[in-house]
Amino acid sequence: MNVSKSGKIYLIPNVISEGTENKVVPPAVLSVIQDIHYYLAEDIRNGRRFLSKLMKLLPENKRHKIESLEFKLLDKRTLYEEAVELMRPVKNGMDCGVISESGCPGIADPGSIIVKAAHQAGIQVIPLTGPSSILLALMGSGMNGQSFTFHGYLPINKKELIRKIKKLETLSESNYQTQIFIETPYRNQKLFETLLEACAPHTRLCVASGITGSEAFIHTMEISEWNNHKIQLKKTPAVFLIET
Amino acid sequence: MNVSKSGKIYLIPNVISEGTENKVVPPAVLSVIQDIHYYLAEDIRNGRRFLSKLMKLLPENKRHKIESLEFKLLDKRTLYEEAVELMRPVKNGMDCGVISESGCPGIADPGSIIVKAAHQAGIQVIPLTGPSSILLALMGSGMNGQSFTFHGYLPINKKELIRKIKKLETLSESNYQTQIFIETPYRNQKLFETLLEACAPHTRLCVASGITGSEAFIHTMEISEWNNHKIQLKKTPAVFLIET
Repeated sequence: MNVSKSGKIYLIPNVISEGTENKVVPPAVLSVIQDIHYYLAEDIRNGRRFLSKLMKLLPENKRHKIESLEFKLLDKRTLYEEAVELMRPVKNGMDCGVISESGCPGIADPGSIIVKAAHQAGIQVIPLTGPSSILLALMGSGMNGQSFTFHGYLPINKKELIRKIKKLETLSESNYQTQIFIETPYRNQKLFETLLEACAPHTRLCVASGITGSEAFIHTMEISEWNNHKIQLKKTPAVFLIET
Repeated sequence: MNVSKSGKIYLIPNVISEGTENKVVPPAVLSVIQDIHYYLAEDIRNGRRFLSKLMKLLPENKRHKIESLEFKLLDKRTLYEEAVELMRPVKNGMDCGVISESGCPGIADPGSIIVKAAHQAGIQVIPLTGPSSILLALMGSGMNGQSFTFHGYLPINKKELIRKIKKLETLSESNYQTQIFIETPYRNQKLFETLLEACAPHTRLCVASGITGSEAFIHTMEISEWNNHKIQLKKTPAVFLIET
């Protein structure tokens, strides 16, 4: 575990709501970007754009020109051997920043492979504080935060989806554990309606969308209440949580 | 869901490592504390101390005197009916800040009961970005962040603990899911050693302690490697993660 010559890898959370850089980004992030010249991003163009917004939060004499920074791709198609290759400059002493498309690198995104490669190479990994829609939704839900599971995406096929939802209800009941999942925005409404259909009347459902933004929506009600307050969900990223 | 007359409830993360207010607290938190005069805290003295550190990050003319702010207790003994009572001033138009002892209110702490009462009363809940040792540990572990479970504390009795650890290994294997848990600092070493004893040689274990602080430690290795690099864990809060 001799890491003395190596650079460090910094996990830099992105915003989860457009234009909130000046609200949710803590000083530690603005501090490290003054020293990093090598970035890995899920989408290079978006990575550059995010970093250029962060630079604007720094005093002019501390900013880097975005064109002077090196960006490389790290996405779900990145193989472990490629991740090892991407860590080579870090092994040789260069610091590296990892940027997700939204929220925290490594949580519901492809960042973990690079962290795995970093640990393997004895490179120090430094996760930085920032917004996570999953965590903020759980905080805002009022559901059990002493025990919870995040499942990522549920099945698309309706029969399988209903079966899965019922399984999550059982899990919540038997383990007293909040069950958290997400959906691609254009399927939000379908998932919401299937939840109302499949869950027991007393199961509590939280829908959290647009968190940290000006149109943030977080509501928790029993299924029977939701059935009396049916809503149209926006096509924005949402987190769903259930608890029996 | 008419919330027009009500105040709002803001969930304000605390630091997870001593003296890091100026690194991990984002601008949104410093902005809302300028308008809040009513706080709920797990420990009132610590709550006041945290807030007084935050005030020092504001320009002098924006600070409140800590003595001018009202603090009430919200801890694990708080009953739901008491939480409803604590929400009464908010229902009448006053904003409220909820502060945890460490990290995010409602995650592995007693905050969720007040959020439940807020939802029930139609009060808008606003979770704010801040450090979470669980989330930062998961980011920094390199383990699967597409699916994970947080279990809180494991059993203390050694036989039960070993049985539980083996169950978590099975869960990780069958669901391809990272298993996350915590321990009270003075039992860190015992848990660590029991993990080395109970887990299969190829199970990966991440130990994350002191995150966001200057002595942060995050390492992920297979159990067989840990057995060759046995360490003495400090008596500081730590998060443990396993993946098969």
